[in-house]
Amino acid sequence: MSELLDIQTVISRLLRHDHILLLCHKNPDGDTLGSAGALFHALKNLGKTVAVLCSDAIPEKYRYLQLGLFDGSFEPEYVVAVDVAGIQLFGDGVQPYSERVDLCIDHHPSNGGYADAMLLQGDAAATAEIMYDVLCAMNAEITPMIAECLYTGLSTDTGCFKFANTTARTHLVAARLIEAGADLVRLNGVLFESKTRSQLAIERLALENLTYYYDNRCAVVCLTREQIAQTGADATDIEGVTGIARAIEGVKVGITMRQQPSSSYKVSVRTVPGVDASAICSRLGGGGHKQAAGCEIMGSLENARAAILSEVERVLCTES
Amino acid sequence: MSELLDIQTVISRLLRHDHILLLCHKNPDGDTLGSAGALFHALKNLGKTVAVLCSDAIPEKYRYLQLGLFDGSFEPEYVVAVDVAGIQLFGDGVQPYSERVDLCIDHHPSNGGYADAMLLQGDAAATAEIMYDVLCAMNAEITPMIAECLYTGLSTDTGCFKFANTTARTHLVAARLIEAGADLVRLNGVLFESKTRSQLAIERLALENLTYYYDNRCAVVCLTREQIAQTGADATDIEGVTGIARAIEGVKVGITMRQQPSSSYKVSVRTVPGVDASAICSRLGGGGHKQAAGCEIMGSLENARAAILSEVERVLCTES
Repeated sequence: MSELLDIQTVISRLLRHDHILLLCHKNPDGDTLGSAGALFHALKNLGKTVAVLCSDAIPEKYRYLQLGLFDGSFEPEYVVAVDVAGIQLFGDGVQPYSERVDLCIDHHPSNGGYADAMLLQGDAAATAEIMYDVLCAMNAEITPMIAECLYTGLSTDTGCFKFANTTARTHLVAARLIEAGADLVRLNGVLFESKTRSQLAIERLALENLTYYYDNRCAVVCLTREQIAQTGADATDIEGVTGIARAIEGVKVGITMRQQPSSSYKVSVRTVPGVDASAICSRLGGGGHKQAAGCEIMGSLENARAAILSEVERVLCTES
Repeated sequence: MSELLDIQTVISRLLRHDHILLLCHKNPDGDTLGSAGALFHALKNLGKTVAVLCSDAIPEKYRYLQLGLFDGSFEPEYVVAVDVAGIQLFGDGVQPYSERVDLCIDHHPSNGGYADAMLLQGDAAATAEIMYDVLCAMNAEITPMIAECLYTGLSTDTGCFKFANTTARTHLVAARLIEAGADLVRLNGVLFESKTRSQLAIERLALENLTYYYDNRCAVVCLTREQIAQTGADATDIEGVTGIARAIEGVKVGITMRQQPSSSYKVSVRTVPGVDASAICSRLGGGGHKQAAGCEIMGSLENARAAILSEVERVLCTES
């Protein structure tokens, strides 16, 4: 297990080293990149040699973070993982550094403690919220660039302040970052208003394959492998449509069924408060949370749909 | 023109009266209802007789604001308009009170000054932001109910803190409202995650009728009257799809064309920064802003589309 550090100890360790490598998680998102970017710029402004390493390419839309990527031109003395909850989330491109992480700064309560030492705040909405405290305690100037890095982490991990992890503190930090020069109009435009063609294609597919049941209290989206392949959608795009059915006014249970290579169907169940999604999935061998659960059902689409709908019916009967 | 008041004068006038009527604008949104609701609950908590009047029915999703609607059971001594920028925005159901407004609290810089007196802050993101100051200066307790009213106004007028009107101060007020007990998870679910079936139907229609031009730098959605009618979409639903084309990654000009009763086409043009939407529309007799403009083109869909595309081509050539 990791040694748990307070912020002052984290700062003294960071300041003690001059060649620092920052690691992000694979499939990098706004929080791992934005939080690493903020620390990168702050340490660079202090004259340190610092670089960022990620197993996957940095998505084009995050180019404005101006991350300095590691090119092997220095030997890291101190390795810091940012927003990486488990060692398996590094990806192969980060070895051998992923096996000698000195410090991990993270907000995931599930963090496995793979690093030598850890700054973990499980109630922070984003790692960026913790990084803001670290930089303030370090007396680092929150430049507009650093403010934009932190705003990126904060806003993406909270769905622009919409998700349940958002707290009063999240808004307070956002206020400080805007005062420090984060251009929220430009950032929100890049982060929340843009969709790829494959995202649109799979949304269209979902809307075309949406059927209502039980007095419109249940909506089901069914997608075959062939249909999904034609849209060019990746895993994240597909994940993005699992919320569509439940979001419809009056719908209490939203279901998305996706055909798997094994000729089974992967079923995502999303419910409104008062209807238990895990109860719907548990009798089919699945599970999850009250409002979001899943299961996998073997067989044809017709059979899989009939199986999940009979569970939905049972739960909706109890509910009404 | 209205007499411009400071907050202290507003408070002394409000407290001087015991029978107060609050007016909202027609087609009521979250800010007019939430801001009026906050004032309603605060004055009621002080023992005043107070009620809310709106020309249109209060949408079902705002039921949690628990507005006490005016039923004529008292004679208003003091009439306060909340978030109403012009007298024409009251609607007929508010007469005769709309012609004797004592005070208007508003954040629209365009406010015409129809009220006797006015508390106007044009740089506030929402009237709810001003109302928060009014209630604090009044030493009103920000109860969870009042916090939820104000959060409703603040979040809906800023697209959940996404739009350009959002400031550091908006986030600071949001933080205070969450501390005061606003249940942001429940509210965001009601306000931002729910779509009607007609909204989904017109989104599907738009995605099915979307074509790319000029190396995917322009995307055009064309909707006939018959198609729109089949979705059951209303004006707000239709307005909601005009942003889809421009939001696609790589698209610089997004166009939505809707057939009108007069057999013309109404054209909405949305552009990314650097491409002038009003330049595209002005030669076709329309106009607007740099990033959002419109025009109306007579004739068949084919002709209308050819006309607008040739203007798009001209502007895109200049741009690249």
